[in-house]
Amino acid sequence: MDQSVEIICVGNELLIGKTLNTNAQWLAKRITTLGLTTSRITVVRDNIDEISNAIKEAIQRNPRFLLTTGGLGPTFDDKTLEGIAVALERKTEVNNEAFKMVKEKYLNYAAEDRMEAAELTPARVKMAKLPEGAIPLINPIGTAPAVFIELENVSIIALPGVPSELKSIFEDSVYPKLKQVSDGVIFFEASVNSINIMESEVAPLIDMVMQNNPYVYIKSHPKGTERIPIIEFHLSTTAKDVTNARRMVSKALVQLTELIQGKGGKLKSIKAKA
Amino acid sequence: MDQSVEIICVGNELLIGKTLNTNAQWLAKRITTLGLTTSRITVVRDNIDEISNAIKEAIQRNPRFLLTTGGLGPTFDDKTLEGIAVALERKTEVNNEAFKMVKEKYLNYAAEDRMEAAELTPARVKMAKLPEGAIPLINPIGTAPAVFIELENVSIIALPGVPSELKSIFEDSVYPKLKQVSDGVIFFEASVNSINIMESEVAPLIDMVMQNNPYVYIKSHPKGTERIPIIEFHLSTTAKDVTNARRMVSKALVQLTELIQGKGGKLKSIKAKA
Repeated sequence: MDQSVEIICVGNELLIGKTLNTNAQWLAKRITTLGLTTSRITVVRDNIDEISNAIKEAIQRNPRFLLTTGGLGPTFDDKTLEGIAVALERKTEVNNEAFKMVKEKYLNYAAEDRMEAAELTPARVKMAKLPEGAIPLINPIGTAPAVFIELENVSIIALPGVPSELKSIFEDSVYPKLKQVSDGVIFFEASVNSINIMESEVAPLIDMVMQNNPYVYIKSHPKGTERIPIIEFHLSTTAKDVTNARRMVSKALVQLTELIQGKGGKLKSIKAKA
Repeated sequence: MDQSVEIICVGNELLIGKTLNTNAQWLAKRITTLGLTTSRITVVRDNIDEISNAIKEAIQRNPRFLLTTGGLGPTFDDKTLEGIAVALERKTEVNNEAFKMVKEKYLNYAAEDRMEAAELTPARVKMAKLPEGAIPLINPIGTAPAVFIELENVSIIALPGVPSELKSIFEDSVYPKLKQVSDGVIFFEASVNSINIMESEVAPLIDMVMQNNPYVYIKSHPKGTERIPIIEFHLSTTAKDVTNARRMVSKALVQLTELIQGKGGKLKSIKAKA
């Protein structure tokens, strides 16, 4: 089974450059830490066709999980659930459990002297309109519940776009589901910076070390320029236990640093973490 | 003709959450300022199949421009040009003009006492290996040239992933190409924050204002919570001249603020810019 995760971020604000997509980075990091692979991130506009196309395309690539961010709120441009429903050829309907969650939120707001909150307007009921067969996930911070849909091969989880809500729902309800699938695999990474050697010179060295260490992935990130080169080397692996992962990465790191020093490069600031 | 732009970002570092995708935001903002639309952003791994699939899928959606970021450097994991070549069913070959650009860079580095730079190793020649029919674009800062490929309906431009190189090539070589197509259309935006009114309450107000102002797009961004609501309203339009754009956005803004105040909301920090 493919243990990969795809992320689809919905929101015009991401496509006009108004908002930096910190949600995608945060999710990708959490997914990686669990030993799973984020295979693709797609950003689409608040448009039902574009959302449903992106969902259908992602499902065809057969990831184990498909996470969406944004578009769950009360306004006209919150279209993610409709987009998912179209992609799955399901209707949307007021979900009883979601309705209870939304209603309770507004009763609480009303009880705090926000009397305008007591009425369940169409905009508020909208947040409880889920694709058929979906399960709402509690939003501990905001109002709109997140949404879980289990298909035969892929689990779809729609998260809100507000970062604090997304993170809190992820930790409470999504992390446990991913953890189950990751089966205790961990991600281990180390990085080291070199000076005084050009990226084009280290290219064949990385090749050699990766051939010797087939489970370690090494990527170079130029930080300066070829002229005044500072290169960050990032080494990573996934393994069943930390000791083994650390051993593999350390072995590759030692080989790499020896080769770099042999070419006159200098190394500094080594970091490693599981 | 569709004046939309798609962005494909290549790099494992974006999919493990190591790197925040500031390149995509920067490009989206520049594209928007030119009055063009970024219709989709896709992030894929350093894998030839995944890159070529993403390229093929994007071309089928028929954008006017397709920009890629990352994967142009000298190391084994710089695979963007090979991915593009596979997608277009073209071979890669050493491009004479690109070869001259790369060679000149290394001669300059060598002249500055980095004698190891004089030799044109395979890793260095790799940066001049372009898909057949491609045109290299000068990289004023780094070594690897950017790459321009004109197809019948879409222009593909491959940019490096190092932000300073991407920006500098964009301003010198890409901006003029986009400008030609945008035909003087400008993007105008304004935003205003409200307090003391919930997002679910403003949903129907936004609907009303947008019906009255069909060329203005309004999106609400909750900044606080429903409980302590701060909502940012973002109004935007594209138009042939700034005066007209400002007039349209201002009219919508006045209507919106009156409706919000009618519901007991308070407004602050209005910003507008072309």
